[in-house]
Amino acid sequence: MKKVNILATASVANLVCGFDVLGMALADPADRMTMSLTDSPGITITHEDSYGLPLDPEKNVAGVALLALVEELKEKVGFHVTVNKLIKPGSGLGSSAASAAGAVAGANVLLGNRFSNEDLVRFAMMGEKLASGVKHADNIAPGLYGGITLVRSILPLDIVRLSFPPLYVTVVHPQIEVKTSDARQILRNQVQLKDAIRQWGNIAGLVTGFLQKDYALIGRSLEDVIVEPVRSILIPGFVDVKQRCMAAGALGGGISGSGPSIFMLSIEERTALKVEQEMKEIYSALGIEFRTYVTRICDKGIKVTEADS
Amino acid sequence: MKKVNILATASVANLVCGFDVLGMALADPADRMTMSLTDSPGITITHEDSYGLPLDPEKNVAGVALLALVEELKEKVGFHVTVNKLIKPGSGLGSSAASAAGAVAGANVLLGNRFSNEDLVRFAMMGEKLASGVKHADNIAPGLYGGITLVRSILPLDIVRLSFPPLYVTVVHPQIEVKTSDARQILRNQVQLKDAIRQWGNIAGLVTGFLQKDYALIGRSLEDVIVEPVRSILIPGFVDVKQRCMAAGALGGGISGSGPSIFMLSIEERTALKVEQEMKEIYSALGIEFRTYVTRICDKGIKVTEADS
Repeated sequence: MKKVNILATASVANLVCGFDVLGMALADPADRMTMSLTDSPGITITHEDSYGLPLDPEKNVAGVALLALVEELKEKVGFHVTVNKLIKPGSGLGSSAASAAGAVAGANVLLGNRFSNEDLVRFAMMGEKLASGVKHADNIAPGLYGGITLVRSILPLDIVRLSFPPLYVTVVHPQIEVKTSDARQILRNQVQLKDAIRQWGNIAGLVTGFLQKDYALIGRSLEDVIVEPVRSILIPGFVDVKQRCMAAGALGGGISGSGPSIFMLSIEERTALKVEQEMKEIYSALGIEFRTYVTRICDKGIKVTEADS
Repeated sequence: MKKVNILATASVANLVCGFDVLGMALADPADRMTMSLTDSPGITITHEDSYGLPLDPEKNVAGVALLALVEELKEKVGFHVTVNKLIKPGSGLGSSAASAAGAVAGANVLLGNRFSNEDLVRFAMMGEKLASGVKHADNIAPGLYGGITLVRSILPLDIVRLSFPPLYVTVVHPQIEVKTSDARQILRNQVQLKDAIRQWGNIAGLVTGFLQKDYALIGRSLEDVIVEPVRSILIPGFVDVKQRCMAAGALGGGISGSGPSIFMLSIEERTALKVEQEMKEIYSALGIEFRTYVTRICDKGIKVTEADS
């Protein structure tokens, strides 16, 4: 195999009460990448989008992830990667994770699948470190494992795939800038024990809700008393979106990753579409440009297929 | 029905990483109680054990729980309760919860089951408030619901029963005094966000391990970076017990409730017995009196049966 096409899915990290540990892959949007093995060592990157991302592999999230992978190979290989980003950087939809995880997933197929998913997470985390300063896997894991994942621990790496009932996801991306690094800085290093207890009651409830396919429990558990109260201040319209989407029948939702995107879960497609309508009305009234998606949880995660040429 | 016999099970609260939210009912030890409806209003309590617990219903955990129940009845009824405590008060095995939950469970059967489990938890929490100053349900819920329970929230009350794979529980109760109220006071009100994240990764892993019957994941998730490092200082031999029981093949374990009892989970009975042996050797060598139990998770919780006379 000389060339692969990669569909690198967007993802929602945190899932409200699962800060830094839960994540979910979305069917839409997804970056499109093509990748080939080259005869000479070295990584070359071409971007077909207009985001002006750095092409130097040492400064590119896909590049550093591939460099980490290449370092563990005995033979010298090179890759050429073409990226067409459809997940806007800084959207809170795991744009950097899609590039990093997509690249290593593609490389692994080109190399005959010699790395485990866990290895790929390790490599891709180098991309997240470049993007946000922190090695985190909550956006990478759902892309590589598919569906909803729990990153129980980073050191040692321990990732668990969770089963879940059918759900629709509505996302709004208000086109304002919230940098992941800024969104991290406004969090306090210390939290109240009583808030932490409430949070771990909720994450235990959410995980149980997913595994037991208990929609009502999922809804009740989508509560974040630690991160959302601080970060939501950076997102105009947040309180309105949450209130009106819940009134429209959404199970619950919150900030996607570090924002500014907001996601909402619904049982029925028609509810997900009503939720989208509410989001559209709110940001139209606020005069903020936005983009919405009505999609599903992507059970398979990143898709790598052999390219024709 | 005029009289009931009650077997009020012990319980392990917290389950290492689930401070204040997880709990598990044990098949052994259990308090034995008998209870009857009386013609005249008022609650009378007799103790057949020698712990010298207060008999005034306002000062007795079973008494205040029953008073809370009676308050919600239209008619005036009275109860006589005889208690033979086999769960030593202050053991960390949910002794007060067994009295309170056992009493309201018995009363409910005598009244023709007119209250829900959730109601009974509300009443029994009044006993916990008397015993420790805090309304908590992590020992009461497993008694009333059976098995392993998650108290997602106290306000509003939200209790979820979790399924779990077959497990043996070995418990050692070193006969030293650790008051629940003292054990609460030494906890800090603030915790590091990074520790809280590790903790909620672990609780999510533990719940997933129980529900998916994944023993290895249960073992990896039995880690507490917040409460155990502080409270274990109050329990001589704790580090040794944990280390040697793990070496003997236990999946994991930790402080039962607020201590001083320590529990360990094992897949096989012979491992649970080896674990007991380690515990015995450690406390014999330390010259501390102790009591051990090798038991199972009690799937049914508190048992109420009609008495012959």
